[in-house]
Formats: sequence, structure tokens, C-alpha cells
Amino acid sequence: MKPILLALPGTGALASGLAQHLSCEVGSLEIHRFPDGESCPRLPPGLARRDVVLLASLDHPDRKLVGLYLTACVARELGARSIGLVAPYLPYMRQDAVFVPGQGITARHVAAMLSGCVDWLVTVDPHLHRFRSLSDLYPIPSLVVPAAPEIARWIRAKVAHPLLVGPDQESEQWVAQVASEVGCGYTILDKVRSGDQQVTVSVPGTLALDGCTPVLIDDIASTGRTMRAAVLKLKAAGSLAPVCIAVHALFCGDAFAELGTAGADCVVSCNSVEHVSNLIDLSAPLAAAVRRMLP
Amino acid sequence: MKPILLALPGTGALASGLAQHLSCEVGSLEIHRFPDGESCPRLPPGLARRDVVLLASLDHPDRKLVGLYLTACVARELGARSIGLVAPYLPYMRQDAVFVPGQGITARHVAAMLSGCVDWLVTVDPHLHRFRSLSDLYPIPSLVVPAAPEIARWIRAKVAHPLLVGPDQESEQWVAQVASEVGCGYTILDKVRSGDQQVTVSVPGTLALDGCTPVLIDDIASTGRTMRAAVLKLKAAGSLAPVCIAVHALFCGDAFAELGTAGADCVVSCNSVEHVSNLIDLSAPLAAAVRRMLP
Repeated sequence: MKPILLALPGTGALASGLAQHLSCEVGSLEIHRFPDGESCPRLPPGLARRDVVLLASLDHPDRKLVGLYLTACVARELGARSIGLVAPYLPYMRQDAVFVPGQGITARHVAAMLSGCVDWLVTVDPHLHRFRSLSDLYPIPSLVVPAAPEIARWIRAKVAHPLLVGPDQESEQWVAQVASEVGCGYTILDKVRSGDQQVTVSVPGTLALDGCTPVLIDDIASTGRTMRAAVLKLKAAGSLAPVCIAVHALFCGDAFAELGTAGADCVVSCNSVEHVSNLIDLSAPLAAAVRRMLP
Repeated sequence: MKPILLALPGTGALASGLAQHLSCEVGSLEIHRFPDGESCPRLPPGLARRDVVLLASLDHPDRKLVGLYLTACVARELGARSIGLVAPYLPYMRQDAVFVPGQGITARHVAAMLSGCVDWLVTVDPHLHRFRSLSDLYPIPSLVVPAAPEIARWIRAKVAHPLLVGPDQESEQWVAQVASEVGCGYTILDKVRSGDQQVTVSVPGTLALDGCTPVLIDDIASTGRTMRAAVLKLKAAGSLAPVCIAVHALFCGDAFAELGTAGADCVVSCNSVEHVSNLIDLSAPLAAAVRRMLP
């Protein structure tokens, strides 16, 4: 029997795209919130012995994690044969070390919570930094979908002479991959972070722009401070207005508007997190990954 | 070595009262929230081989559950010998049955989540209705603190001729217990609920008020609709202005103010959920229960 896709709130157009590529139905899922703030998921009929695929957008995750956990538990209660999770944006991955005594590696604990309620995981470009692989954190089978091919396709179609720019060392893994697919050069800037909202970025003196359009690429745009600092530095170094691409468009507060003010030509993102900047669709590669994970 | 108490946000004055009765320290616990909405608990130094008591007020639980889960996991990571949970208000207990097809018994799933991260549980008057005992839901050792003795003490001190009133059948368990401790009579009204916010209550025609002050008692005041309907019916039946007592003062939205408007003499609650109506302190019986649970 075909799998059934259940979309948690906030997954937007990605749910129908994914279902179309999987040729499966999107089941009705309602998460009622009682006046006292408790959540009550209601799942569609006929889940017994079905393979259930949960699609969850896990930006601003704390409240969503409980809704997801309860939905997975209820799917199990209703007799689902398997329960998989497509979480195109995987949260808590940046908390991969103890930065201050008294903190913990919460990436591990969120991984344990999710691994306890679903059977497999598909995600897009998780922020793997100190952990080298998802399997170091998630005991369940997992598959990483790279956004690079879809980002490269967009750049080839839309930017005439691109020079890819990574705002910091951590971004090199994505930027190098995209540059290789586009067939263009890339450069990496130096970043120093001094708080949640404070970053400084420096452009190497040797940077040759040669009439290229800088295309800034980062995996997560959260406060947007890193990208904003990079846009300002590039403009000051005489560049054309940079194109900004984020895999995961968290864009907290005014972050998105501030990138425009700073002088970005445009700001584009993948649809792993629903946002007005979503121009790069990941439903096809996500569907391919889901097909590999289904029993 | 003495246990250490860590108070999650929103536990108010109960933390210091509990620590005083336990003669233990309240450790500093900060839950930093990053701009992207992720939580990062920071626990105090010296937790290795200590017995940790977490105090959490779990009204409006979804976001708080993740903070609590992460705090418990980090305490474990830091080497705590045991981790107990004092949750004076235990959420999700009313979701103890499948009321509509496609729903699940989320009381079970929340119990599994909490039982997975702490070693024991102390709570106050959990809403046990279809489950008869906490141990039917929570595999970890648990202890229920009854609020009845403290509520009875308050009534004896403050209400001259009380007649206790339960707004519905479910409330009889608390009301009978309090009446027996006060040494006065009680009556139970009939309630029909037709939605989250709609209830009707009927007062038996035989109700003899005889100059008594009706004291309405319920375990959870959420929308306050049940209590409000009861106040209006009692007033219409010619009673003195009723005293309203809730064990757990959730009071969503305007619920609290509306009880005054309806004609309640006063609205009083236990401090299991922090609220301006908290006049009944549970720290002494909670401390006694914690002492019984500590290894």
C-alpha cells in the first residue's frame, strides 16, 4: 500500500510538492490546541499497517517538537507499520559542544527525543560541524539531502558571472560543493562571533571580483548578521550587489529586510523552512530520499 | 550530600518555600533562548553525584516540556546521581481517552517522555479520571500530594459556615476529601460540556443553603466556565456570594476576572501554578513528599 504523508503545521507548499513526487496522498492532520495550551493531534483514518511519512518544519522548534512527538506517538498508537520523519531543517545542530560550563550537548538530547518516536529521518544539509555525521547523533537510519544541486541549478539559470562567497570557514563545505556543480570559483571570508547578534567579517585584500556577481551562500540564515556583515564588506570592497542564498531561511526578527537595506541584490532560499524568499524547491530530491528510506 | 533544587522558569515563590522546608539550596538555572528559538539550559557547577530536584510549573506545557526535558538531560550529562521532578501541576492528564477517532491518549505519551528523563515524580492532585492511579501512566516511582488538607485548613480559618460544592461528578473526589477534613457537608452539581468553552451546570432543587457560604472547589480552573456557570446558578438559587477554590489555577484568558463579575466572593488557589490568587501554600507537603522520594 502507498505511504501516507502527514504535514505538521508550517510546512506550506512543500507538502503537496513532496506528495506529488511520491505519488501519495497528504492525509488530514489537525493539531487542536486547547485553551490551556495542550495540543491534541487528530490523524486521518486508516493508518493501521500503513507507512506514515511525517513532514515537519522545525524552525523555532520548542513548541513544534511536542506536537511532532505527540503526532508520531499517536500514529504508532493507531497501528502505523512505520513512521518516518522528513525534517528539511533539523534544529539544535549548532549546539554540538559545551561552550560554557554547565551547558550540555543538546544536539544529542534532541536527537534522542526524535529517534525515540520515529523510525527514520531525512533532512537537508544539517549543520554538521563538530559531529561529522548524522549517525553520530541519531541512532535511527538517516539520509542527508544536499541542497547544492538545486542551488547550483538556480545560480546557473539566474546569475551571469557568479563568484561564490562563503561568509565563514563553517560554510566552506556547502560553498565548495555548489561551486563545483556550477563550475565557478569561490572564496571564504573570515568571521569572528562575539555574541548571538554580534559578528565581524573580513574580506581578503586579494579578492578579485573582475565584474563577477558575488553569490553569498550559507546553510542557516538566523539573525542574518553574518550575511549582512558580508554584504557590507563586499560592497565596501567595490563589488556588484551580492546575491544572498540561504539553505535554511530562519530569518529571525528584521533579519530579512536588513539584508536588502545592506545592499543585497536579492535574497533567495530553499523551501526547507517556509519563507517569502523560497525560490529553490527541494521536493524532488526529498522525495527521492524518502523512497530510499521506506520499508 | 544535600540535594540541590533547580527551579524551571515560572515556579515563583514555591521554589524558595520548598528549599526552605528541605533545608537545601536553590541552584542557579538559566535557560537561554537563542534568536532562532532554541533553548540552552545552563546548570550550576558541582552536580556530579548530587541528587537533583527539578521544580517545574507545567501549565501551558508544550514549550516548557522541551526546556524541562533538556534540563533533565543536561543534569544527567553533568553526572547527577538522581534526578527527580516536582511538577505540582501535571499537564495532559485530561487527555486520558480517545474522544474522537484519530486522536490518541496523549496522557500516556507525555508520561513516557517525562519518565524517560527523570527518576521520580511528585505532583499535586493529578486529574485521575479514567486512569485510576499515576502508576498506570508513569513507570517511574511517583507520589501524589493531596491539596485537601491545606485547602481544608484555609476554609476552617476563613469561612464561617461553609457548604462545599463540587461543580461536577469528576470533582467529587476532591470535594468529599476536603469536606471530611473541614467537618462540613457537601453537594455535587450536574455538568454538561458541549465544547472547550461551553458548559451548563444545574443546581439540585433540594439544595438547602441555610445561610451557609457555598465554597466551590475544583481541581483545575482553565477557562473557568464550569466555575462561572456554578456561581451564576448558585446566586440565582439565592445563595450568598460563593467562595471559589481551585487546586490548579490555569485561568486562561479572562477566566479569572469573569469569576468576579459573575458574583464570586473571592477566588483562591494553591500555588501549584503561579497566579495572583495563590493563597494556599503547598511547599510543606511537597517537601515531605520529596524527602520520601530521595534516594
